[in-house]
Amino acid sequence: METEKLRVVIIGGVATGPKAAARARRMAPEAEIVLVDSGSILSYGACGMPFYLEGHVKDLKQLLRTAYGVTRDEQFFLREKGINVLTRTKATNIDRERKTVSLSNLDTGQDSVISYDKLVLATGARPTTPPVEGIDLMGVYRLHHPDDACKIMDNMEHFKEMVVIGGGFIGLEVASAFSNRRLFVSLIELHNQILPGVLDPDLEAILRKHLENRGMEFYLGRKVLRFEGDAEGNLARIITDRDSIDANAVIMAVGVRPNVDLARKAGLEIGSTGAIAVNEYLQTSDPDVYAAGDCAETTHVLTGRRVYLPLASTANRQGRVAGDNVTGRRTRFKGVMGTAVLQIMDWNVGRTGIGDSEARALGYDVLTTVTPAHDRSHFHPDHSLVILKIIMDNKSRKVLGVQAIGPGNVDKRIDVAASALHFGAGIDDLSELDLGYAPPYNTVIDPLQHTANAMRNKADGLSHAITAQHLKERLERGEELIILDVRTEREFKFKKFVGGSMTIPLTLSDLRGKLQELPRDKPVIVLCESGVRSYEAMRTLKGAGFENVEYLEGGLQAWPYGPSGLMS
Amino acid sequence: METEKLRVVIIGGVATGPKAAARARRMAPEAEIVLVDSGSILSYGACGMPFYLEGHVKDLKQLLRTAYGVTRDEQFFLREKGINVLTRTKATNIDRERKTVSLSNLDTGQDSVISYDKLVLATGARPTTPPVEGIDLMGVYRLHHPDDACKIMDNMEHFKEMVVIGGGFIGLEVASAFSNRRLFVSLIELHNQILPGVLDPDLEAILRKHLENRGMEFYLGRKVLRFEGDAEGNLARIITDRDSIDANAVIMAVGVRPNVDLARKAGLEIGSTGAIAVNEYLQTSDPDVYAAGDCAETTHVLTGRRVYLPLASTANRQGRVAGDNVTGRRTRFKGVMGTAVLQIMDWNVGRTGIGDSEARALGYDVLTTVTPAHDRSHFHPDHSLVILKIIMDNKSRKVLGVQAIGPGNVDKRIDVAASALHFGAGIDDLSELDLGYAPPYNTVIDPLQHTANAMRNKADGLSHAITAQHLKERLERGEELIILDVRTEREFKFKKFVGGSMTIPLTLSDLRGKLQELPRDKPVIVLCESGVRSYEAMRTLKGAGFENVEYLEGGLQAWPYGPSGLMS
Repeated sequence: METEKLRVVIIGGVATGPKAAARARRMAPEAEIVLVDSGSILSYGACGMPFYLEGHVKDLKQLLRTAYGVTRDEQFFLREKGINVLTRTKATNIDRERKTVSLSNLDTGQDSVISYDKLVLATGARPTTPPVEGIDLMGVYRLHHPDDACKIMDNMEHFKEMVVIGGGFIGLEVASAFSNRRLFVSLIELHNQILPGVLDPDLEAILRKHLENRGMEFYLGRKVLRFEGDAEGNLARIITDRDSIDANAVIMAVGVRPNVDLARKAGLEIGSTGAIAVNEYLQTSDPDVYAAGDCAETTHVLTGRRVYLPLASTANRQGRVAGDNVTGRRTRFKGVMGTAVLQIMDWNVGRTGIGDSEARALGYDVLTTVTPAHDRSHFHPDHSLVILKIIMDNKSRKVLGVQAIGPGNVDKRIDVAASALHFGAGIDDLSELDLGYAPPYNTVIDPLQHTANAMRNKADGLSHAITAQHLKERLERGEELIILDVRTEREFKFKKFVGGSMTIPLTLSDLRGKLQELPRDKPVIVLCESGVRSYEAMRTLKGAGFENVEYLEGGLQAWPYGPSGLMS
Repeated sequence: METEKLRVVIIGGVATGPKAAARARRMAPEAEIVLVDSGSILSYGACGMPFYLEGHVKDLKQLLRTAYGVTRDEQFFLREKGINVLTRTKATNIDRERKTVSLSNLDTGQDSVISYDKLVLATGARPTTPPVEGIDLMGVYRLHHPDDACKIMDNMEHFKEMVVIGGGFIGLEVASAFSNRRLFVSLIELHNQILPGVLDPDLEAILRKHLENRGMEFYLGRKVLRFEGDAEGNLARIITDRDSIDANAVIMAVGVRPNVDLARKAGLEIGSTGAIAVNEYLQTSDPDVYAAGDCAETTHVLTGRRVYLPLASTANRQGRVAGDNVTGRRTRFKGVMGTAVLQIMDWNVGRTGIGDSEARALGYDVLTTVTPAHDRSHFHPDHSLVILKIIMDNKSRKVLGVQAIGPGNVDKRIDVAASALHFGAGIDDLSELDLGYAPPYNTVIDPLQHTANAMRNKADGLSHAITAQHLKERLERGEELIILDVRTEREFKFKKFVGGSMTIPLTLSDLRGKLQELPRDKPVIVLCESGVRSYEAMRTLKGAGFENVEYLEGGLQAWPYGPSGLMS
């Protein structure tokens, strides 16, 4: 072992860097480990910032502490871990031949050079702040560093008309935090949907409708052109390419891009995603230089493609792998599955694998299904709704992705799916899983398996389904459709579906006796609340010789149009 | 298709039977389907009975209703599903040659014969009521049928000294229900632990300690000999082989055995487990007769062995498979993974795969690890404790089982593990899963992966751990041990570990500076709250040349002895 003289230098002290340093220390007790960061705060739980703004995390310092209450500062790293930390120190250059890094102290201006045996780049990402006019007005905030969170918290009492720019993870978590604080929040997003690339448009529409009902306002497909202020230099309005939105506070959450300056300058290979290229051991094009976390690209396990998906979980898992490999072990980072979960107000959102349009673009024979379900036994007081979507390749029956939204337990189903997808699960595998059942936790057939069964029915030609979007298009075209509503009388009275040339309310228990009375000359769309009864009715009608019959997949629970639209 | 004349007869109307019938109906709209049950109540959610007793389910009728509020009675099955139901009708004989079933109406005494093309046996299980004296005393209840639950509910106000017999799933759910109702509950169990075959003794001890602290009382390793009553025929006490326990109410939850009378009489093969033998299509030794649910045995996917594990989830999944296969489809039931979850008071319990001793009995080179962890980010207000155990084969690094307990989210980790085990996951696979992270749902490295990493450290020879049980044994033998407590000063003051020849409190941050002062002539046991810091300290000591050093796996959170024992 050469560990006695091994020197590991790690650049970046937020998540990946400290994790790599700590793991390296445990693997090589005698190694010299130096952690360099240009900031003054180390190892902070950046993901906690929206929860701080919401008031759930009372003190920003909690995000800097270990679970046992010790602040992770320079002293902590030195005393507890024997790791030398240089804060307020910028790494300005890497000499890969001499294996040295040039450093500059941002306070004293003093330059120095440090040598390394192994180098880890954990330089992270930085916000892609758009170069718009008025960005320095008072009331314009970003949220990338704890200092930003402090500034927002200090000024929050003045927030009246608040706008979040960016409908990705952070944007929605921030919008959610302020909505939960009873502020009226508007959100501007460049794409025509929130969570682009995260949720498919069908689930996104259901989620957005819920958030609108809860009082959030969305400006989609807008490009922000400039911020306009008042005479005192305070933000007054936001000008987009389509409108002017009054606002005295704006938080920019417009995504990040990998910080690759140092790597590029050192001649290290940058991947097609714009992040540092690494192999499965997280080695860059220089085998003594590793890159991990938000500055590096990774592999999508399902597609095998190189991707840039900066997430805290990946950053931490990679930090551990880097810490192993710089100290002589050989640990693989297999890649990611595109798994993500987030909470937006009282709903949960999650996804894993790839989405509908990405799957089509990759040439898969895509089949999807959307299924609402109870997350727990319907007789258990805590039961709630989850709406799941499975994306499948119909040729191989391989599951390509799972997405879920709703007030119920989403994260469990996404993680179970992520686990199955890791092993290349087919749709039949999902149905065959032996998941734990008890009334406080799920239904006898778990929502994920219920959805998988719906997908198997579809793939096996048993299920003739129409999606909400497709039904809406057909209704808007004025097609003559018979809407057969098989819900109970009480449900029918409570919530009506408006549309089609004729609506026939006929409960499932009356259907079999009245099959002869139903018209057979027009297409029939069967609907119910969740799609279970309408699927059954569709099977009954098919069995009775009705040819043109489909059921509304996901039922009214997955119908995102209205309440002022088709529903009344 | 012969579906026009197909006649399917299903015997048993609780869970599997109705599921099989409903699926068969959807697959074969023209088939004649007859469901026979000797009781008068159909398709009830038996798993909901403890929640009814607790008061969470207000009305027992909820357990008989669909999610949309319709009671699943004979009329429901006939009208909604076109299924003929014969209640209060006992199937007395099967003539496999003529393909007929003899029926007897329990009310009228009338006998009849019905023919079948395909027959499904869903005869379920019945309680293994021990033949003890005094079982007919007032105050002695069982809990197998909704009528039992009604009887208990009606008499609950008189319960003063209450005893549950049986420490399996139902026994503990019932004990939990009454404890939550603020009744003092004692539990008698034949084995020396609760949940035998479900939890390994180490986790069981931690769980039981918690339940004892919450006021439950356990009489383990006791065989009930008889019940004794007072002059009025009311239960007064329970006599076991070791003691006499005063009680005026007892609920027997002593497990079930498969109801195979009809199958045996018909000459169908009974498996070594005592349940009806079936192939992976749920066919019995007669290809036209299927068996599913609590009367049938199944295959353990991990071990390949035939097992009898009657659970509602399995029953329902099998019902669907039987419904497919009797109508001409060919759907496989792959087997089970031994997954189970349950809630006991404020703790959650779950397991999948096989346990420690079963794995040893099967000849695996067993390595285990126990790891407490936060289920969510420690700065999130909802975070709570989970204690996980992984059982692994050290030769192949294959994961054999995962168990978990604690107030935190257990069911998600068990289902994720069940999903991974389905595919034959190795320990490295568990670490490589891309699970969804956000503060409300987990930690950046999920507890399951944290535990998997601890296991990898152990398998890789990095981790020198001692289990709580082993440390206790060594302390009891009076071995000279140095206890090095690396918790913070505040933690140390709050909760002390008593034992060993010398206790040295030395926080992790002081450890590196005082390595020279520590005695090297005696074995050192490092401990902390969860095992994270003590593992790190162990690595530091090893690096500094200490040879005889181990850390307490799971820390004080997994220490089940005390509070009156070693802890004070």
